[in-house]
Amino acid sequence: MNYKIVTLPGDGIGPEIMAQAVKVLDEVGNRFGHTFNYEEHLIGGAGIDELGSSLPQATIDACKTSDAVLLGAVGGPKWDTTSNGDRPEKGLLKIRETLGLFANFRPALLYKQLQHASPLKVEVIGDSLDILIVRELTSGIYFGRHERTICDNPKDTYAEDVEYYNVGEIERILRVGFDSAMKRNKKVVVVDKANVLATSKLWREVTQEVAKDYEEVDYSFMYVDNAAMQLVANPKQFDVIITSNMFGDILSDEASMLTGSIGMLASASLGEGTLGLYEPSHGSAPDIAGQNKANPIATILSVAMMLRYSLGLESEAQAIEKAVECVLDKGYRTGDIMSVGCKYIGTKEKGSYICEAI
Amino acid sequence: MNYKIVTLPGDGIGPEIMAQAVKVLDEVGNRFGHTFNYEEHLIGGAGIDELGSSLPQATIDACKTSDAVLLGAVGGPKWDTTSNGDRPEKGLLKIRETLGLFANFRPALLYKQLQHASPLKVEVIGDSLDILIVRELTSGIYFGRHERTICDNPKDTYAEDVEYYNVGEIERILRVGFDSAMKRNKKVVVVDKANVLATSKLWREVTQEVAKDYEEVDYSFMYVDNAAMQLVANPKQFDVIITSNMFGDILSDEASMLTGSIGMLASASLGEGTLGLYEPSHGSAPDIAGQNKANPIATILSVAMMLRYSLGLESEAQAIEKAVECVLDKGYRTGDIMSVGCKYIGTKEKGSYICEAI
Ligand SMILES: CC(C)[C@H](C(=O)O)[C@@H](O)C(=O)O
Ligand SMILES: CC(C)[C@H](C(=O)O)[C@@H](O)C(=O)O
Repeated sequence: MNYKIVTLPGDGIGPEIMAQAVKVLDEVGNRFGHTFNYEEHLIGGAGIDELGSSLPQATIDACKTSDAVLLGAVGGPKWDTTSNGDRPEKGLLKIRETLGLFANFRPALLYKQLQHASPLKVEVIGDSLDILIVRELTSGIYFGRHERTICDNPKDTYAEDVEYYNVGEIERILRVGFDSAMKRNKKVVVVDKANVLATSKLWREVTQEVAKDYEEVDYSFMYVDNAAMQLVANPKQFDVIITSNMFGDILSDEASMLTGSIGMLASASLGEGTLGLYEPSHGSAPDIAGQNKANPIATILSVAMMLRYSLGLESEAQAIEKAVECVLDKGYRTGDIMSVGCKYIGTKEKGSYICEAI
Repeated sequence: MNYKIVTLPGDGIGPEIMAQAVKVLDEVGNRFGHTFNYEEHLIGGAGIDELGSSLPQATIDACKTSDAVLLGAVGGPKWDTTSNGDRPEKGLLKIRETLGLFANFRPALLYKQLQHASPLKVEVIGDSLDILIVRELTSGIYFGRHERTICDNPKDTYAEDVEYYNVGEIERILRVGFDSAMKRNKKVVVVDKANVLATSKLWREVTQEVAKDYEEVDYSFMYVDNAAMQLVANPKQFDVIITSNMFGDILSDEASMLTGSIGMLASASLGEGTLGLYEPSHGSAPDIAGQNKANPIATILSVAMMLRYSLGLESEAQAIEKAVECVLDKGYRTGDIMSVGCKYIGTKEKGSYICEAI
């Protein structure tokens, strides 16, 4: 088969990890007889620099006609203040919105080979951890009205951000989350702050309705402050966590750090159809950009998620996942996950070893 | 001296931990020659049950004319749905607002005697941890407009919560936070989501202004998602964290869990004057209420904070803190912090041992 993949390398380490992801995807193509046609486009700081926009129209057009989108990372201190107020992150938020990618899957997985890398004690984390955070991605406070109002008395000048959710938005993300739970351990925790927020109360009511269609799923609610504690104290209690955009942002980062290997964690953003955007959970790491130091595995595993969710190529996805495990088993490590007795390799070498293992 | 202390035992384990706090405070009175006059009032679920309100007027009046307020804890499943929509938590939010207690101090302290209790590896947490989270407490999304709008098409029904901050509110909490940093290690991290939120951008600008008055303080900004990660990965980088109501709620709970001894952590809420409200960082734990199992130390250490901040009695505060350390040194433990070789004791016994040690 022929597939059209849009690649958005972005900023910082984005281009170098993307190069490895493409290398691995080509290897999968060779081995399984698929052709991946790439169209590279600009996003984030790269878009601001070259075309004056964090999300140029050409990028949007290309993504809309693609089978899937692979993203590196966006952002960096260079664009903290731009002349027109544009920012790399705006491009990311806007592409999610424009493509209707409301469901963000962020698995927090502990690899047994990297068990030592978790900051948690072995008694707490055990030898495995597998949490799936399902984050609503195109509504909530990140997409509500943001406004500053200047007042005569400078102390009165204020800013507002509006957390907004309607029933339809809540329902569709819950269904996606409950569906995922059905394929896993059938345990859902919906995280909110229903003792204070009106949006959270609405989430609870909609959850109670949606849950009726998933009788086998054992679901419960948890306040976000408690969830932030429970992730540290007893992460193994979680299977699927479903939550709002902002809470998901915070908790998925916390959860991924528990594994100690954020350089390993992929993410997928999906909408109603099969089109999806796949990106590593980590950021653009401008401090190590261009030094062949970045761990490309999160991006390579994002390719696996792309094969599985957007292209329906399960065996191909598994081939990548197995190749990654194999390279880990052999003790090859980039600096972020290095440990005594392992062999230090760079970004490119890691990509090559994974290709070989496929 | 004579002091008027309002006690608000509240719900769950509230009454039993409050009894121990009062016992300890009386001991301090005996030893140092002060008289503490108590007025006990209702709040939370107890207020709803007896007077039909989570914050009865009599409670407000008493607090306003007191030197300080001691709170146990509020909340429990019993009041998850009440006929008039009142909730225990509303009483807590309202007393903070009514008394103008905009600054919430939540120390996350690791006691060397309880080092084993941290879920973090020794390499990560070391043998001490001392983070002060300064949380804005009377504005932000918890106090903005909360609203549900019913639409003809049920899927369109929506809810909104408004995150609001004005310059004056931001400035006063920052000053309190920077002042605290001056008495500690002069290091401040302001946590926000300035890559997305208008309120966060305003926080950043005000911080830059306020910081000019604190040249010795080394300050920086951090995104909340990153902060949630950094607390787990490298908590020792933090001294003082200053942040909004909601981010402070989430991060202070996460940070307190890192110490493994949330039953030990006190908190203080202060306004412009000396009147303050002191409460344990933990909740009402309805599951163990009335069983003489709860750890009263967080509440007892809240008494120490009260003596220090509201009554200006530093030696008295230290006497309590030393007594707590002494009881820990002797190996007396409630169940939450129990470990091999220690002696198990109940809530009351712990209060008594601390009294003895004073
Ligand atoms: C860059 C930022 C806007 C973004 C978000 O918060 O959504 C990022 O933190 C993420 O989690 O993908
Ligand atoms: C009970 C709740 C409203 C409260 C809050 O979030 O402020 C509590 O979680 C706290 O942190 O004191």
